[in-house]
Amino acid sequence: MSQLPGAVSIREVGPRDGLQNEDPIPTEAKVRLLDALSATGVRRIEAVSFVHPRAIPQMADADQVWSAATRAPGVRYSALVPNSRGAQRALAAGFTEIEVVVSASDTHNRRNVNRSTDESLDDIAELIELLHGAGATAEVIVATSFGCPYEGDVDPVRVAGIVNRVVADGADRVAFGDTTGMGTPRRVRELVTAVRTRQPEIPVLLHFHNTRGTALANLLTALELGITEFDASIGGLGGCPYAPGASGNVATEEVVHMLHDMGIDTGIDLDALVEVAELAEKLVGRQLPSGVLRAGPRTRLA
Amino acid sequence: MSQLPGAVSIREVGPRDGLQNEDPIPTEAKVRLLDALSATGVRRIEAVSFVHPRAIPQMADADQVWSAATRAPGVRYSALVPNSRGAQRALAAGFTEIEVVVSASDTHNRRNVNRSTDESLDDIAELIELLHGAGATAEVIVATSFGCPYEGDVDPVRVAGIVNRVVADGADRVAFGDTTGMGTPRRVRELVTAVRTRQPEIPVLLHFHNTRGTALANLLTALELGITEFDASIGGLGGCPYAPGASGNVATEEVVHMLHDMGIDTGIDLDALVEVAELAEKLVGRQLPSGVLRAGPRTRLA
Repeated sequence: MSQLPGAVSIREVGPRDGLQNEDPIPTEAKVRLLDALSATGVRRIEAVSFVHPRAIPQMADADQVWSAATRAPGVRYSALVPNSRGAQRALAAGFTEIEVVVSASDTHNRRNVNRSTDESLDDIAELIELLHGAGATAEVIVATSFGCPYEGDVDPVRVAGIVNRVVADGADRVAFGDTTGMGTPRRVRELVTAVRTRQPEIPVLLHFHNTRGTALANLLTALELGITEFDASIGGLGGCPYAPGASGNVATEEVVHMLHDMGIDTGIDLDALVEVAELAEKLVGRQLPSGVLRAGPRTRLA
Repeated sequence: MSQLPGAVSIREVGPRDGLQNEDPIPTEAKVRLLDALSATGVRRIEAVSFVHPRAIPQMADADQVWSAATRAPGVRYSALVPNSRGAQRALAAGFTEIEVVVSASDTHNRRNVNRSTDESLDDIAELIELLHGAGATAEVIVATSFGCPYEGDVDPVRVAGIVNRVVADGADRVAFGDTTGMGTPRRVRELVTAVRTRQPEIPVLLHFHNTRGTALANLLTALELGITEFDASIGGLGGCPYAPGASGNVATEEVVHMLHDMGIDTGIDLDALVEVAELAEKLVGRQLPSGVLRAGPRTRLA
């Protein structure tokens, strides 16, 4: 275990990625969740996205949510945007950390935005310029990095090529999304190696789903490769496109529970986090797929 | 990945450990499950236990199940017994691989069988003699090896001491049970190291629960330490003592799915296995907690 990092940076994505894939909840419930998360010691939160309300009604009230939320000192908040209009809204709302998405798989990208991956990368180059001009940073999230539900395996070299392109275009950081839970320890190792060989300096964050049970095994593999930034979603908010009751986003409390037991610091109070997971479950009104939420941390005795 | 083993031996425990922790199902359903599993390519199956029907009504028909089941060539079948009376029944039924259990935690052992761990080890020494006298092998399963729900952490040195004792008493193999899902990569590393340092030769099998999401991360850690034998339960049969819907035994298809993707051979046909998981779900009449059952293997495209 001696090669493992001593600390890990968790970005909590429940308020955006999580809630975007649940039935809509009231604005005040979103604010309550955001504020509760801000008080757990987590240092990064993906707060909202600025998308068209017809496309994603769950985020129609992004401005109201963000105006009402408490900005905790020491917490970095980010927003996701799909285009320059969203970017303008995010900048106007005061965000200085902005995320944009592209799918590594052409088919997945076309199904999402009716454009090829390359066309989206052209748009992203312009977006990065716009964001930098306004003093904000730009993170490029590469979806379907560990596999595509339409195309199957995605060549890590193709993903690394996308990274080369966005780094050349000025991206401040990259993230790799396991969009439908096709990641495994092998795929993580291959992708991280392919990217790190070509771009040893760019900050890398991994976003795992637990669709097929591999999320924490993937995370462990990434830790062994020196990756120290991960997305996670409180309670596992975000569901799964396949079936009710199935897992999507890995649950933040499962990640933190394992990391703390391994002596890896996150800055997060696990007990407080589990309480927020209970709150999240109440707010969305369905049982969330988090084992640590159900059973409690291993230190909670009978 | 080069240090990882090329092949792993999975013992399927759904018919015994799994069904023992579900509502009782008819004898013919148990036989159907056993026969379906025997046809997947799995090489070891824990078939039944010979316990008092008042204690565990789910296994009251163990003799009938085993008489009716097809013995597939190339499959090793085992049975669990709690005492010499159970051992006699198992031997009479023709089993030659027998498992006995003791808890590493005194409190857990007393709650289960009203005896201390040491008192149970005395009983086990006699059982091993009885089994060997009848030409059968004896595996000692050490429950609560990664933590006890009453006592908390269990010292790996204490577990290693139990192994020393049972090896001296003639045990043919040992297994470590993560009875309530308190295992983590750190605990796996500490326990395997403590045991291997003292007993480098005894065959070791690990039995993980996915109660807190760590099962496959634990398994990955064990693989890196050279462990090649694991229990798993079809569909995740076996539930969890904490809450409905929560995970207990790690699902066989989740284990096989990850191993095969890593190029590690199990001899099992994953598609056949997923079909048996579907059957298991029908037979017990509740949604089982297996991601690969819900979403299909990562190779199943949309």
